[in-house]
Amino acid sequence: MANILPNSERVGIPNNSLLTETPEEGRQLAMMIARHTIHQIQPDLDVLKEGRKEYATSPHLLTEAAKVVALEFQTIAAANNYWR
Amino acid sequence: MANILPNSERVGIPNNSLLTETPEEGRQLAMMIARHTIHQIQPDLDVLKEGRKEYATSPHLLTEAAKVVALEFQTIAAANNYWR
Amino acid sequence: MANILPNSERVGIPNNSLLTETPEEGRQLAMMIARHTIHQIQPDLDVLKEGRKEYATSPHLLTEAAKVVALEFQTIAAANNYWR
Amino acid sequence: MANILPNSERVGIPNNSLLTETPEEGRQLAMMIARHTIHQIQPDLDVLKEGRKEYATSPHLLTEAAKVVALEFQTIAAANNYWR
Amino acid sequence: MANILPNSERVGIPNNSLLTETPEEGRQLAMMIARHTIHQIQPDLDVLKEGRKEYATSPHLLTEAAKVVALEFQTIAAANNYWR
Amino acid sequence: MANILPNSERVGIPNNSLLTETPEEGRQLAMMIARHTIHQIQPDLDVLKEGRKEYATSPHLLTEAAKVVALEFQTIAAANNYWR
Repeated sequence: MANILPNSERVGIPNNSLLTETPEEGRQLAMMIARHTIHQIQPDLDVLKEGRKEYATSPHLLTEAAKVVALEFQTIAAANNYWR
Repeated sequence: MANILPNSERVGIPNNSLLTETPEEGRQLAMMIARHTIHQIQPDLDVLKEGRKEYATSPHLLTEAAKVVALEFQTIAAANNYWR
Repeated sequence: MANILPNSERVGIPNNSLLTETPEEGRQLAMMIARHTIHQIQPDLDVLKEGRKEYATSPHLLTEAAKVVALEFQTIAAANNYWR
Repeated sequence: MANILPNSERVGIPNNSLLTETPEEGRQLAMMIARHTIHQIQPDLDVLKEGRKEYATSPHLLTEAAKVVALEFQTIAAANNYWR
Repeated sequence: MANILPNSERVGIPNNSLLTETPEEGRQLAMMIARHTIHQIQPDLDVLKEGRKEYATSPHLLTEAAKVVALEFQTIAAANNYWR
Repeated sequence: MANILPNSERVGIPNNSLLTETPEEGRQLAMMIARHTIHQIQPDLDVLKEGRKEYATSPHLLTEAAKVVALEFQTIAAANNYWR
């Protein structure tokens, strides 16, 4: 039987807001949103764990993951007027 | 005979609007728009199902899919003034 | 003899405008602009048809095509003030 | 002896301006700027012609080229206030 | 036993701010943020060192890393009103 | 012994400014910034020369390099209000 992630891990935007107190919180939100996108497409935890083994040791896949986070952070930073 | 998706799955922008009530709805819209782009290019459900098997277990393809969603969400978030 | 696309398929921006009535029309324009870029670089219909066979069944290439559309749509959506 | 492109093909921004009369001219400028970037990095015409054979028949490379044009066009379209 | 990076190398946004005095400092921040994203996903120093050997001699992976930095710098430059 | 690039080739933003007189100068700055990113990650000239042989004849890698330049140019063009 598939080992499905709980709903809390599958929501698109945790807390349903792009606004954060600090850049650091905004960055963590970007990372979470990126991860949850993957969770929404592939909610089977066993498959995700297999994938983790592969991408976490691949410089190529780590770099691609960093691009996703960079794109999400662009959106969050703009939403927060860059915490100026 | 090809198993073609219904028109409702092939529209470019569901509900013909980028405006949503909440970030979460905006995120779901981004995911739908991304999926519908694929549907428009490849409306054959059997081909799509074959593809799903491949990308849903590939850390690389899941990451690429996450980039598409991130790009669409940038547009939707800007359209909604980031739900500020 | 090469089977060359007509000029109407090779124009960069169909109708020479980024402005559309609705998000849906904007989305279709984004798809057309993306396709016409390819047509401008490779106007030989036979080569394009060969390529179509390849990318339309490849989850990777479909995802990459979706990125191009997402980028073009960002421009068109901004041009139209997001149809707000 | 290397067959080097003339300087006119190696300038970064033809006419030294991002402003154009129409979206179509802006699109052609985006394509030219994309091409000239390649020319600046690799000005040897023989190498470029070899490369052309490869990318012009590869759906993957055509799609990647379309991304470059999409990115350059974002800049040009913003420069021209989207020809509104 | 895994050789885990210290917390200072795993924070998302060093100094918790996107604002810098100069473009050069902004650029260094972009590079640091890009690197820290990788650190957050993969904090094992031994794995990172193995990866470094691979990407630092690969023109492809160096180019992909440069894209991540370019994306992060877009955000930082906007945050600082481009140091105009 | 490694053949290390001089510091002038490893600075992130040459002249520590994004502002230029003309689009052409902005474009050349974009190319320099892209190149310096690579230099910062990999300052060994011998490794860079080996890599150059590979990417300068690869249509794929030339296209990826063009994306980096396009992204950096987006930032520089915005910084200069598009030289309007």
